[in-house]
Amino acid sequence: MIFTSDNAFGVAPEILEAIAKANGGAVSSYGGDEITSRLQKRFADVFEREVAVFPVATGTAANALSLATLTPPYGAIFCHEDAHVNVDECGAPEMFSGGAKLVGLGGENGKIDAGGFAAALKGYRKDDVHQVQPACLTLTQSTEAGTVYTLAEITGLAALAHGRGLAVHMDGSRFANALVSVGSTPAEMTWKAGVDVLSFGATKNGALAAEAVVFFDPARAADFAFRRKRAGHLFSKMRFLSVQLDAYLDGDLWLRLARHANDMAAHLASGLQALDGAVLASPVEANEIFVRLPAATTSRLRKAGAAFHPWPKRGDGEGHGTVRLVTSFATRLSEVEAFLKAARG
Amino acid sequence: MIFTSDNAFGVAPEILEAIAKANGGAVSSYGGDEITSRLQKRFADVFEREVAVFPVATGTAANALSLATLTPPYGAIFCHEDAHVNVDECGAPEMFSGGAKLVGLGGENGKIDAGGFAAALKGYRKDDVHQVQPACLTLTQSTEAGTVYTLAEITGLAALAHGRGLAVHMDGSRFANALVSVGSTPAEMTWKAGVDVLSFGATKNGALAAEAVVFFDPARAADFAFRRKRAGHLFSKMRFLSVQLDAYLDGDLWLRLARHANDMAAHLASGLQALDGAVLASPVEANEIFVRLPAATTSRLRKAGAAFHPWPKRGDGEGHGTVRLVTSFATRLSEVEAFLKAARG
Amino acid sequence: MIFTSDNAFGVAPEILEAIAKANGGAVSSYGGDEITSRLQKRFADVFEREVAVFPVATGTAANALSLATLTPPYGAIFCHEDAHVNVDECGAPEMFSGGAKLVGLGGENGKIDAGGFAAALKGYRKDDVHQVQPACLTLTQSTEAGTVYTLAEITGLAALAHGRGLAVHMDGSRFANALVSVGSTPAEMTWKAGVDVLSFGATKNGALAAEAVVFFDPARAADFAFRRKRAGHLFSKMRFLSVQLDAYLDGDLWLRLARHANDMAAHLASGLQALDGAVLASPVEANEIFVRLPAATTSRLRKAGAAFHPWPKRGDGEGHGTVRLVTSFATRLSEVEAFLKAARG
Amino acid sequence: MIFTSDNAFGVAPEILEAIAKANGGAVSSYGGDEITSRLQKRFADVFEREVAVFPVATGTAANALSLATLTPPYGAIFCHEDAHVNVDECGAPEMFSGGAKLVGLGGENGKIDAGGFAAALKGYRKDDVHQVQPACLTLTQSTEAGTVYTLAEITGLAALAHGRGLAVHMDGSRFANALVSVGSTPAEMTWKAGVDVLSFGATKNGALAAEAVVFFDPARAADFAFRRKRAGHLFSKMRFLSVQLDAYLDGDLWLRLARHANDMAAHLASGLQALDGAVLASPVEANEIFVRLPAATTSRLRKAGAAFHPWPKRGDGEGHGTVRLVTSFATRLSEVEAFLKAARG
Repeated sequence: MIFTSDNAFGVAPEILEAIAKANGGAVSSYGGDEITSRLQKRFADVFEREVAVFPVATGTAANALSLATLTPPYGAIFCHEDAHVNVDECGAPEMFSGGAKLVGLGGENGKIDAGGFAAALKGYRKDDVHQVQPACLTLTQSTEAGTVYTLAEITGLAALAHGRGLAVHMDGSRFANALVSVGSTPAEMTWKAGVDVLSFGATKNGALAAEAVVFFDPARAADFAFRRKRAGHLFSKMRFLSVQLDAYLDGDLWLRLARHANDMAAHLASGLQALDGAVLASPVEANEIFVRLPAATTSRLRKAGAAFHPWPKRGDGEGHGTVRLVTSFATRLSEVEAFLKAARG
Repeated sequence: MIFTSDNAFGVAPEILEAIAKANGGAVSSYGGDEITSRLQKRFADVFEREVAVFPVATGTAANALSLATLTPPYGAIFCHEDAHVNVDECGAPEMFSGGAKLVGLGGENGKIDAGGFAAALKGYRKDDVHQVQPACLTLTQSTEAGTVYTLAEITGLAALAHGRGLAVHMDGSRFANALVSVGSTPAEMTWKAGVDVLSFGATKNGALAAEAVVFFDPARAADFAFRRKRAGHLFSKMRFLSVQLDAYLDGDLWLRLARHANDMAAHLASGLQALDGAVLASPVEANEIFVRLPAATTSRLRKAGAAFHPWPKRGDGEGHGTVRLVTSFATRLSEVEAFLKAARG
Repeated sequence: MIFTSDNAFGVAPEILEAIAKANGGAVSSYGGDEITSRLQKRFADVFEREVAVFPVATGTAANALSLATLTPPYGAIFCHEDAHVNVDECGAPEMFSGGAKLVGLGGENGKIDAGGFAAALKGYRKDDVHQVQPACLTLTQSTEAGTVYTLAEITGLAALAHGRGLAVHMDGSRFANALVSVGSTPAEMTWKAGVDVLSFGATKNGALAAEAVVFFDPARAADFAFRRKRAGHLFSKMRFLSVQLDAYLDGDLWLRLARHANDMAAHLASGLQALDGAVLASPVEANEIFVRLPAATTSRLRKAGAAFHPWPKRGDGEGHGTVRLVTSFATRLSEVEAFLKAARG
Repeated sequence: MIFTSDNAFGVAPEILEAIAKANGGAVSSYGGDEITSRLQKRFADVFEREVAVFPVATGTAANALSLATLTPPYGAIFCHEDAHVNVDECGAPEMFSGGAKLVGLGGENGKIDAGGFAAALKGYRKDDVHQVQPACLTLTQSTEAGTVYTLAEITGLAALAHGRGLAVHMDGSRFANALVSVGSTPAEMTWKAGVDVLSFGATKNGALAAEAVVFFDPARAADFAFRRKRAGHLFSKMRFLSVQLDAYLDGDLWLRLARHANDMAAHLASGLQALDGAVLASPVEANEIFVRLPAATTSRLRKAGAAFHPWPKRGDGEGHGTVRLVTSFATRLSEVEAFLKAARG
């Protein structure tokens, strides 16, 4: 009964097999191999347009390198105040950008409030050298609150950003979970809605360690390859990074894995809602549940061997009764039911 | 009737004369001159203890170099959300520190709320590598709202900071105005209250372009000189920077200049309070007034030739009727009275 | 007949199996797992002292993070002018350190000349703020010329460095090849000779993507974990990074793999030396051969299907007849013999 | 008899008077004043084309901010190995650029050798992500060896740079001395010869602390103002910085001051050449002399009260008998003659 995080789980068997299969013989290093080459095509197919794709091993690398490419050192990056880039990456975007400033915005259920964003933008004057200059908006999809932006919400926020000349980045460390939740195409949830660059996550959804930075306008990616190398994020044996993404997309594995995780979360949430005294902190739309539980319930669950984090995990981590439950591609229905049974006492 | 800013005014005659007088002959460059040497002693006398003093030409340099010395790249700097370092320096602290994060705190009248600061600190876990690490607290004295921290308030905030191992910096770009307002000694308002490093401003109060970074523990200044040089802030003809500070301190010129500016502000505020429809946005404790004026009053003042900024100046600068009035060492009583007369209509 | 690079080859079967075996169940993420924990002990055993060990995925990350930990932004890092950190990492050490300066030193056969290093150090005055300050010496072992520093050479260079207060880093991306070449213990080739921090490479010698940064004085590692996270180099599914190093050390696999690569290189070099017109550019002491070949020979080899790079690879890559041949853990004797046969014509 | 440096001297009386005269009344701060505005026109006249001009207070700031504007963080900046930016600015270009790499080139008499530069460029492959990318060439005029590039030399080097897409910067901290030496127009020595951005020095030649960064293509300056502010190099009382440059250009004061300094150097050099045992280390073409003197001569000079530095000043500063003599706008003929008399014994 492990609900601590989706990255507590290992690698999907299909991906592990693909890694093993990629091990035959010698190939060009640093991305000169065939598997890496065909990734461009694969992603172009998935996103229905030409893209520039760069595999990296971690979500922090994907986000920080993307943001640094879109933001000058004197730029401002707008994000939700609870965004991973703002509170969980130890200042990576600041480091990679040469000291840009993250501006945290409020908003219910982990989603940036459009009105608040518009108001914040009005606080900046173009060419006022005393102020950092708005350069980028980053949206987390699915959000840190386990919710999912609708296509209309993304479109609206992106329009505001573009109207002021900002680029739009999406932190998609749980992109697949959001996609199957929304039920749209990948294109609809990204460039068709105004997203310029996507951190396409795979690690949390079954890869060993693989994310792809996807530029929907390849011209914007001009210097990304230098930034990646300079940051130590170019793998010499790149095929083993690329093949994870290759297998992840193959036969829609990524969607199947995400659907399973989401289904487990929905099942779990539904059981919890029936529970006396349990209150969901935000709607459950992907694979994360934030729920306030009676102390006795939490205690009973711990005794039964369930693992999960009080939330917020940061700081004193008191959480005041709220806990986070994360399901993954590997979460079994029997675990969910055992959890609910223990919760019910 | 210029009330736009204290830096709209020129140089106090005593300081200009001192610059001219320093011009005789050849001396060692880069701070090897006699005037620079004797500054150490002068500041030690003013602050009643051994200090390490570094002249620089701008307040942004003083602040950003100080903060960079006190904060690692992965550090967090706590400041008031309206602090100059946070909103008016185009990301200088981020640049000089290698990407540290400024955490803006709330608080009435431009002063950091101690409870809010304590709560914010609880949000960080020591050794949680996902979070930037609390490293520094910076207080602006006098504040961006024209108020002044009491000694007790400084002592309380500094104690909270030190209790978590943070260093305490004071942005004293209007230090003299705060000092004559509080009526304490320089020592009492700084190291005796827990301040580790002070940006000692002189430019706004009559210097041409001179600030001093004062380390109350000289051991902490170990690498400051390298950071200053590397940032292009070491003057070759240093004597002309140092002599401004020398003349500024000489015969308590600095206190006289600040007292005059504060007196002009008090007089102006008192006249405004008697005015129908005028509402002070915060108490007037130094040389800045933030006041909401009826539109007719503002318009009458502009017609009469008064110069001042709507506030906040940032962004759309609408200010909704609030304006900022700054007095300086050079503001004349007759100007204040002319202003009040025009305001009364 | 692939002799382009050791990173053109895949993963040693033992390591791939260990990865697969680590895939069972859910574990703590970000290094909280058991495999990562036991690495500390394993490395302590290998190096015969308490150490602090940090796995990362690339050699550039290992080097740049190490150097940034040892060098302030205004510091100088001394290295061989041909060192990987200086010419093949796109400025990674400059980025991670916040702008430190790499000072390239000359020296035969890829080894820093002690006299040149001593002379370079004399060019810096302590406390001269106009100069970057000597902070670190980095040695590549085995070197970019395929040679290996003797223990006496390391000891001598490290003593020079320590005498001026510099830290000593070793870029051991081919550490195993050097070790079996020298025949010393790991301790003798590192901390006993004066090395403070080691980039312990595994990728080129059979890992998928794994290096370890080893601090011989754990106190020096105080902020490394923050720097690693902030750079996006902390893996969420860390077990899969750690297990590579675990399997690499297990039963001395690393030494066996390196010994094989070195043996293949020795055999190849010996065959080349017997060849008319072939001249070794430097002694063959590890798994790299730099050899000048007659144009006809090169052409014959290419026709026979041999793959290798002209050298230097950088820039115009003309190489003027010199080529680089790299053997690996996976190079087969039959390939070496086929190569020699083709070379002989 | 002070020949230590041109920045050991004070301020030209005309410039000091202009500062005093600028002190009347209140004006817009941060460069919104009239004097700063008219600088654009003044420089446009001097350089015979539209330019974008940014005053700063130090040469290190002018150089580092210029180079950072022209170079991405992963860029290479080519300079003479003895260039001030490379050895005397404590890594300022590295800091301001976010970690670009300075590549030192050789060349007689402080001038970059064109063949060496061309060869160095060939060492870089476009799109090789392992290498920093050539972005900028910087020339020091006059050079660190007291010589002056001819127009043909500048044109040749700039053409090489532009041919590879590099920008061309000129460090003109002694630009006036070079200009009167060459006898060309300012336009001929800069943009007509291929210079894109100039650090136009005034401090060494009689200003208090003032340099101008001049962009010959204003479009290139797009983000300079943000970089300047962010670095703490935007003066609030900007008029006092601008007026120095205004007075410096007024009535060709700058050329008169430089001509005097050069004349004094020529006179001194001519006297030294007649001296037994004195050997010039490089031609004397501006206001610096590098000369090897017999130990007895040096000793006699010191006894007579002459002040000068052994050279190189860096490091052990032994200089092996070579000394540097710098003349300035304020050097008197009588001092030169007294020096020569003492030298002759």
